[in-house]
Amino acid sequence: MKSDLDALMKAAELDAILVLGSAEANPAMYYFTGGGHITDAALFKKWGQPAVLYCNAMEREEAAKSGLAVKPIQTGVIEVLAKSPRPIFEEQGLTTGRVELYGMVGAGDLVCILNALHEAFPELEVVGEPKDDSILLRAMETKDEDEVRRIRHMGQVTTEVVGMVAKYLTSREVRDDEVLLREDGTPLTIDDVKGKIALWLAERGAMDVEGTIFAIGRDAGVPHSSGTPTDLMRLGQTIVFDIFPAEAGGGYYYDFTRTWSLGYATPEAQKLYDEVKEVYNKVSENLDLNVPFKEYQKLVSDEFHKNGHDTPIHTEGVLEHGYVHSLGHGVGLNIHERPFSRHTTPDDNILKAGVVVTVEPGLYYPEKNMGARIEDTYWVRPDGKMEILAEYPYDFVLPMKKWKRKKK
Amino acid sequence: MKSDLDALMKAAELDAILVLGSAEANPAMYYFTGGGHITDAALFKKWGQPAVLYCNAMEREEAAKSGLAVKPIQTGVIEVLAKSPRPIFEEQGLTTGRVELYGMVGAGDLVCILNALHEAFPELEVVGEPKDDSILLRAMETKDEDEVRRIRHMGQVTTEVVGMVAKYLTSREVRDDEVLLREDGTPLTIDDVKGKIALWLAERGAMDVEGTIFAIGRDAGVPHSSGTPTDLMRLGQTIVFDIFPAEAGGGYYYDFTRTWSLGYATPEAQKLYDEVKEVYNKVSENLDLNVPFKEYQKLVSDEFHKNGHDTPIHTEGVLEHGYVHSLGHGVGLNIHERPFSRHTTPDDNILKAGVVVTVEPGLYYPEKNMGARIEDTYWVRPDGKMEILAEYPYDFVLPMKKWKRKKK
Repeated sequence: MKSDLDALMKAAELDAILVLGSAEANPAMYYFTGGGHITDAALFKKWGQPAVLYCNAMEREEAAKSGLAVKPIQTGVIEVLAKSPRPIFEEQGLTTGRVELYGMVGAGDLVCILNALHEAFPELEVVGEPKDDSILLRAMETKDEDEVRRIRHMGQVTTEVVGMVAKYLTSREVRDDEVLLREDGTPLTIDDVKGKIALWLAERGAMDVEGTIFAIGRDAGVPHSSGTPTDLMRLGQTIVFDIFPAEAGGGYYYDFTRTWSLGYATPEAQKLYDEVKEVYNKVSENLDLNVPFKEYQKLVSDEFHKNGHDTPIHTEGVLEHGYVHSLGHGVGLNIHERPFSRHTTPDDNILKAGVVVTVEPGLYYPEKNMGARIEDTYWVRPDGKMEILAEYPYDFVLPMKKWKRKKK
Repeated sequence: MKSDLDALMKAAELDAILVLGSAEANPAMYYFTGGGHITDAALFKKWGQPAVLYCNAMEREEAAKSGLAVKPIQTGVIEVLAKSPRPIFEEQGLTTGRVELYGMVGAGDLVCILNALHEAFPELEVVGEPKDDSILLRAMETKDEDEVRRIRHMGQVTTEVVGMVAKYLTSREVRDDEVLLREDGTPLTIDDVKGKIALWLAERGAMDVEGTIFAIGRDAGVPHSSGTPTDLMRLGQTIVFDIFPAEAGGGYYYDFTRTWSLGYATPEAQKLYDEVKEVYNKVSENLDLNVPFKEYQKLVSDEFHKNGHDTPIHTEGVLEHGYVHSLGHGVGLNIHERPFSRHTTPDDNILKAGVVVTVEPGLYYPEKNMGARIEDTYWVRPDGKMEILAEYPYDFVLPMKKWKRKKK
């Protein structure tokens, strides 16, 4: 939690944290400002002191809404830091010591800032850590009550929209060749469905910031294929629907996946789904307080391996089918954050009280035109219990209201 | 244009460009990939050669849609570059020479990448330029036909939505205290209007990625205030409506502003608007091929100064009222890009054929609860003519359909 930050900074011997960039699409800045239309800013958080926000003078009122101490400057903030950082750093009393950099900023600008700082203050040590290991991500890793409330709300929005998509699809007319039809009788495409998802999310104050995955057939067998817009919606094919909206303006995420087959399922797809569901159940029943998250990656990989699938633990090289990813990840202002679950993840990525994580086993066979993944987002409550933040049924075959399978 | 890139690289003595990050919310990467759900990638563009895209194996099919040569790797791309960049750089034959960094990436990751590269290849010079001056922005500065077509389309979407907002507002019932009412008879807020804007944009395949400005009264007098969500919509107050949506998925932007006063205008606000409109007309009539853009910033500042307003050229320090910003900027995959128009901008930011720029003079008086800005986006055509990419009327007072001013 944010209240852990000074202790984390002290342990890391940091004198200050400097966050660069805008407040949107920049979780490190959002964490301090709570969003706002602040496009060009630099935030200094010195150890034991409240944060100070340098902003473009034009954005001073938006910046003030953050409740932080605001220092407006007439020209671009990043521009000033890249050209002559001395006055601002001297004002902050940061001419020696250790300062860690955060935020999203253009690579070119950052190279300039580093060079300018090195020249102005040779005794100032500028530190960077890979995002996943950084102390700010460690603070973000556990959520306070208000953060959980916001993630839970996004979960409600998410499952509401998923339910609307299910209802819409199962109400379609179906052509003889098993293609679903639009209201006007023409074929329904992935693009049509995605348009509705974006609309229904927008109506509820949510954005599918990074692009919903709605992938059918072969695309469902490629975990991060977001789906081919022109693909037609058909019966009897696996559909992987992975939706991870954030609060509009770039706030907290939710992450959720269901796999469907409309009307009927092929026996092969049904078997694939059942395997994933069985492993999902096994994990969800065994999640336990303070266990390293990667223990469950081992459990899942062992189970899938037993059934003859490739896994990241049992198979070398680039995985093209089987279980090809890790079990889950933390969710917050970042769609992927600590704790992580890869088998190579450090042991300190544990299911401690306050973390919010996804559990998302899956199996992928692009060459057989199918894939299956099930994902829910869990909160490890202060009492150590695991709670799904938004419940939704696990039906695989969704019966069509206006279509019945013909007897052969 | 992209076809200028090799010549620009040669002039800058660059052996390669390296673009880091995702394809969304990252214009440098989008410029090469054309978007796609690619969240973790590194693109090498060597001089005289086509670009090569390293991506996460899970995203290989999305990456392949770019048409670029794709190299999938099993773990995170940025993670690999931060820890051991050697194999990838050796594969690209980049162990000496000059490589320029681009893209949006976490500051911590980038510091790690720079340190790792310096250690692995002491003779490799890693270059960064401030975004606005970089050679990639110089390539992006002029648009080809397809880019102009896409920006023009966003302009059509934008003005269509602006027209819908005008129609919606002017159709409202009005309470005795001049507050507009929702359909259910309760007061209409800024938040309600913004919800409709987001929805109408989403329906048209556009996103208000960075947050539409819809600001009334005092907020209209603060150029980058995006508006207070709980503010009520009232007659007779200046409303600054600055809308700058991008193609969904993070493509080309349009940028557009109108200032309205509903029902009637105070004489003071009318005068303010008329001054802005007069200056807007003067600029738009005088825009000319190959003139440095900042010449028009001087023209506008001189005009406003003559009328007694503060301006960035005539006034020292942080500007709090008057004409407080620059005249305009290029628009493309970045909402702000070359050419720029500040009086300190280098002379080579000119209105050359192929650029797309905004023209947006404004006057701001927060202490008088008013502001006014007019903005259109112009294309400098290959024949040297200036063309507004989406026409829209300049009415300031929008008459209300169901309200008439009482005679006093």
